[in-house]
Amino acid sequence: MTDKLIIWTLDWVPPGPRGFVRDLRLRWACEEAGLPYTVRTVPFDGRETNHLDRQPFGQVPFLSDGELQIFESGATLLHLARKSEVLMPRDPVGEAETLEWVIAALNSVEMVTVPWWFLKMSGDADNGLTGWLDGRLAHMERVLGEREWLAAERFTVADLLMADVLRVADLRSHGNRPATEAYVERLTNRPAFKKAQADQLTHFAAADETRGIA
Amino acid sequence: MTDKLIIWTLDWVPPGPRGFVRDLRLRWACEEAGLPYTVRTVPFDGRETNHLDRQPFGQVPFLSDGELQIFESGATLLHLARKSEVLMPRDPVGEAETLEWVIAALNSVEMVTVPWWFLKMSGDADNGLTGWLDGRLAHMERVLGEREWLAAERFTVADLLMADVLRVADLRSHGNRPATEAYVERLTNRPAFKKAQADQLTHFAAADETRGIA
Repeated sequence: MTDKLIIWTLDWVPPGPRGFVRDLRLRWACEEAGLPYTVRTVPFDGRETNHLDRQPFGQVPFLSDGELQIFESGATLLHLARKSEVLMPRDPVGEAETLEWVIAALNSVEMVTVPWWFLKMSGDADNGLTGWLDGRLAHMERVLGEREWLAAERFTVADLLMADVLRVADLRSHGNRPATEAYVERLTNRPAFKKAQADQLTHFAAADETRGIA
Repeated sequence: MTDKLIIWTLDWVPPGPRGFVRDLRLRWACEEAGLPYTVRTVPFDGRETNHLDRQPFGQVPFLSDGELQIFESGATLLHLARKSEVLMPRDPVGEAETLEWVIAALNSVEMVTVPWWFLKMSGDADNGLTGWLDGRLAHMERVLGEREWLAAERFTVADLLMADVLRVADLRSHGNRPATEAYVERLTNRPAFKKAQADQLTHFAAADETRGIA
């Protein structure tokens, strides 16, 4: 395995999103799978337009894998999952379960949690999405009360992604869901998560010095 | 190829969502690829709880493929795409492009369009997500002004999904995006889309008679 994976993120972000920028998902997956990678950056300043040729919505992360360029954290996770059985089983049932739960995290859970959080951050905490959010989180609480892992009765990239979706502080403080909280605790206590998070925090803290911010 | 694919949807829905229930995505994909399938149903009444063992959020569609059961329309589309080159190229670059745009449709576009539409339907047309929506749709308009297809310079399942996301009437009447409109027109004029849509409308209309609704 040559060191050909490059995770692209921003060169700096303000303190608020540190520890939550989605390059963490890619770092975490590579750490779990033992896939070597390097981290490179695009400028925070002008991010709305300065890398649209590589990420058409002006976001990060994106991944380079030799000749391949892939954007969307969910897509990069599925791409990485095909490199390592640690992230996704190879049997058809285990693979299908992993795939459906990866997509569920993106399109049934995060499709509600992120806009709800966006409205809350905009000053509208009790917004029109709250009922929908509560329903989706209740479904997840039921599922996580019945099983330890989402797919294939073992850790997969689906757990990595769902835990990253559910670990947001504003969700954890909204309502009481003990099975979800235990799940998030269990996943974020994994050494690979801790290393990924620490590395991201170090990356952005180092950028403060470059920018002359003490 | 045996006729082993079963698309599961509801036995009936009210007129509003007809033509937009997401089983259409699966029907459309199977029609494009020439994959034989049958359609089976779960009851509309009690849908919140009557099929949680097969779809943990109480939604449709889900897919049976022999021994496999897969939920989340996005996951089923990626599963079907691996059965037919019509839906996804087999070269690594073409496959990566298809994958990233499938996920972009689910997590960068629909993550904003669906909650925005939900708030609009709830009576809040000029809601707190409108600025974010406009930005995402503007990015798509730029992309679609520069190319005919999202991935691999040919039709893929990424176009199928993105067109289904963008064809919603409330989005098309919100702002003026000629490249997006032409794209949606082009995709929804495909015979496979027309057949899938007509079949769904026929399915739900037939259910009216069973329920005694003229």
